[in-house]
Amino acid sequence: MAELIIRGGTILTIDSDWRVLSGDVASRDGEIVQVGGRYTPRDREYELLDASGCLVMPGLVQSHVHMCQTLARGRADNLELLDWLRWIVWPYEAELDAGDVAAAARLACVELLMGGTTCVLDMATVRHTGAIFEVARAAGLRATIGKAMMDSSDNSAALRERTIDALDESARLCETWNGAENGRLRYAYSPRFALSCTDELLREVARVARHRGVRIHTHASENRAEIAEVVRRTGMENIHYLHSVGLTGDDVCLAHCVWLSEGERRILAETGTHVLHCPSSNFKLASGVAEIPELIEAGISVSLGADGAPCNNNLDGFLELRLAALLHKPRCGPRAMHAALVLRMATLDGARALGLADQIGSLEVGKRADVIVVNMHTPHVVPTVDPFSAAVYAVRAADVRHVAVDGQVAVRDRHLLTLDIEAVMADARERSRGIFDRLEQKAAKPSS
Amino acid sequence: MAELIIRGGTILTIDSDWRVLSGDVASRDGEIVQVGGRYTPRDREYELLDASGCLVMPGLVQSHVHMCQTLARGRADNLELLDWLRWIVWPYEAELDAGDVAAAARLACVELLMGGTTCVLDMATVRHTGAIFEVARAAGLRATIGKAMMDSSDNSAALRERTIDALDESARLCETWNGAENGRLRYAYSPRFALSCTDELLREVARVARHRGVRIHTHASENRAEIAEVVRRTGMENIHYLHSVGLTGDDVCLAHCVWLSEGERRILAETGTHVLHCPSSNFKLASGVAEIPELIEAGISVSLGADGAPCNNNLDGFLELRLAALLHKPRCGPRAMHAALVLRMATLDGARALGLADQIGSLEVGKRADVIVVNMHTPHVVPTVDPFSAAVYAVRAADVRHVAVDGQVAVRDRHLLTLDIEAVMADARERSRGIFDRLEQKAAKPSS
Repeated sequence: MAELIIRGGTILTIDSDWRVLSGDVASRDGEIVQVGGRYTPRDREYELLDASGCLVMPGLVQSHVHMCQTLARGRADNLELLDWLRWIVWPYEAELDAGDVAAAARLACVELLMGGTTCVLDMATVRHTGAIFEVARAAGLRATIGKAMMDSSDNSAALRERTIDALDESARLCETWNGAENGRLRYAYSPRFALSCTDELLREVARVARHRGVRIHTHASENRAEIAEVVRRTGMENIHYLHSVGLTGDDVCLAHCVWLSEGERRILAETGTHVLHCPSSNFKLASGVAEIPELIEAGISVSLGADGAPCNNNLDGFLELRLAALLHKPRCGPRAMHAALVLRMATLDGARALGLADQIGSLEVGKRADVIVVNMHTPHVVPTVDPFSAAVYAVRAADVRHVAVDGQVAVRDRHLLTLDIEAVMADARERSRGIFDRLEQKAAKPSS
Repeated sequence: MAELIIRGGTILTIDSDWRVLSGDVASRDGEIVQVGGRYTPRDREYELLDASGCLVMPGLVQSHVHMCQTLARGRADNLELLDWLRWIVWPYEAELDAGDVAAAARLACVELLMGGTTCVLDMATVRHTGAIFEVARAAGLRATIGKAMMDSSDNSAALRERTIDALDESARLCETWNGAENGRLRYAYSPRFALSCTDELLREVARVARHRGVRIHTHASENRAEIAEVVRRTGMENIHYLHSVGLTGDDVCLAHCVWLSEGERRILAETGTHVLHCPSSNFKLASGVAEIPELIEAGISVSLGADGAPCNNNLDGFLELRLAALLHKPRCGPRAMHAALVLRMATLDGARALGLADQIGSLEVGKRADVIVVNMHTPHVVPTVDPFSAAVYAVRAADVRHVAVDGQVAVRDRHLLTLDIEAVMADARERSRGIFDRLEQKAAKPSS
């Protein structure tokens, strides 16, 4: 029996009573067995993490990331979405071999875990999705991952695939990985976005994903040019179109949703479709400001993600939640996006989007022990009155001290135990250079 | 002769050619004597800071902070400006004794220096401004500081002062401190904002500050209720009013300027008045989004600040510059607020606002050595292509490794040399609790 005791912190449970407790969080074999008070271990052998002067809270859940893109950090500034995809991100993704994808995912896992993110919903690229699962397995990250599906004529030739191949490979990956590592790894069908996919593919995804009981993850209504193009092709607004092919519902996760009509909002609310809010990315790609308080008011479930390194340029859950708390206030007033609400978005509501709210997202007995310990004894957080406010407005990723996923310690005293950071960084640097050198050579060829 | 060598980094000079150099930055007696290449020390005794794998750049200049407010961190969430001032910040400031002010300033200096800010324009409260100067002197921060002047009937009785007292104390402080520590400390006349000051005071400030050749620092057009009240009282738009009493010009620094008419913009441009942009604060107080790209386009000098801990809740220059780079893109396009431009706003343009552009804000021979060294060999920054992009979008305050101000090392390998951080935090906690306990008792009295 493996016991973990996180000792003596201020515990933000994020339970339905917003309880803040003092004392220990303890888990046995990955399951939380006590929250608050002093825990008496059953075994003589147990693992102890000191949390004095610290916040103990559920690990951050980022419901929209692209770990495979991490080697393109800083390579795609100053662009809007469609140019960003066509000029940089798709050529980059097309160039990746399995080793590159693994290197990108490793770098992502290091940043995510060190920064207190314990769970992600990740959209991979078209190929080599298995490499990302392998990395998440080794890194100790909880991850729902899906191969990007791109079968329409609108995609770059280098990424475009046949409909049947997109479905077959997704099925193979789902069979191999969904539920692996005691359920820590899961599969999500991931058609990239309406413009990347044929009508046939989207309808089949809706059917097959439901048959398999897994999540569907896509992008929607991020950028006005994207939306105009969807309307031109389908004759429908984007969300109406997705609804018409079956891609709405409690099992569907839509990244962005920056631009929605009243009718589209109503569909999302009525179907229980999840919105994944990515504030840094929406700013950086000049997409716009999603009307999140209004979506929440309408009863829509909203969670948070950093998106990818080339549109952020971090994968930092604390930056995203601070930004999510701040950015809507000028429009909606200073009480909008209360710190506690934002913390729930970054944890329990992320779990809800992934269909894991009964397992993670709050610190409650019976849930899996995805727990982070955040130092508050640091000059930019002192003095602390309200721990919710501190966690949202003052704390930073660098304050994350310990991280446990499924009861396994991944970060102890800011040391990552699961990957060799120096090797990961060296590999990332070298492969990134190689990829972009090759892309440059290819770009130069036609004119020579 | 004191020599400092910062060895072997990637140097963002922020000079007029945006040069990026490799090698050393060296100073003698606080003056930069070499930028780039290998420096050969003159003396056998010199101080060496390793910068391999690091960015070397000018220290951040925050042109609008309130160090005295740091003990109210997390105490004033979810409020708009005027409520925030009247309900929390003014009662807090009125309660401060000299020891409290010093404790707040010490905590601010720790966060500022550790986070790479080497220079601030600070507005103190009505009393005990000398205590802030003493702290800045000891901490090694470059600071232009001014006592807040508040003589109108609109202020809380506890802070309100007579016009003559506001002027006399400012004069005394200016005489004592302006130019101290080899020019590292300077004075700025600091009428709080139009509503806090009589017409007579503002006119006299314009006259006296110019006579003394020091900066004038105030707030303007931050919040719509504030602006409406100024119009009601003066019959003029806020900037027109300030212009009418002499408070525009190259020596005037106006924090916020979120809401400006076309005519007000024209005045700022024509007079060379400086705008101090505080993006986190403008979000958190629900003030609005200042139209910074448009102001820059109009030729207005804009720099950056975190404002105070109770409206941010950090004093982190890197958070502010990342946010400044991101937030205007949805309105102005993805190329707006280019990383290099934002870095200049956070350094040289801040120096310009303070009248110190010939001395600091870029790394050039002959300037004072206010230099920071930022680690790029860290998972959330790797891989790095463009150092401007990395510094703006990926780097965080916790990556700041060394800090020198006026050639003196204040932070070495993330250790602050000038203040005892543990003692500063303990004092801040205790005093903050005491202040708010006393305020609570006072608030309870009338009803008992």
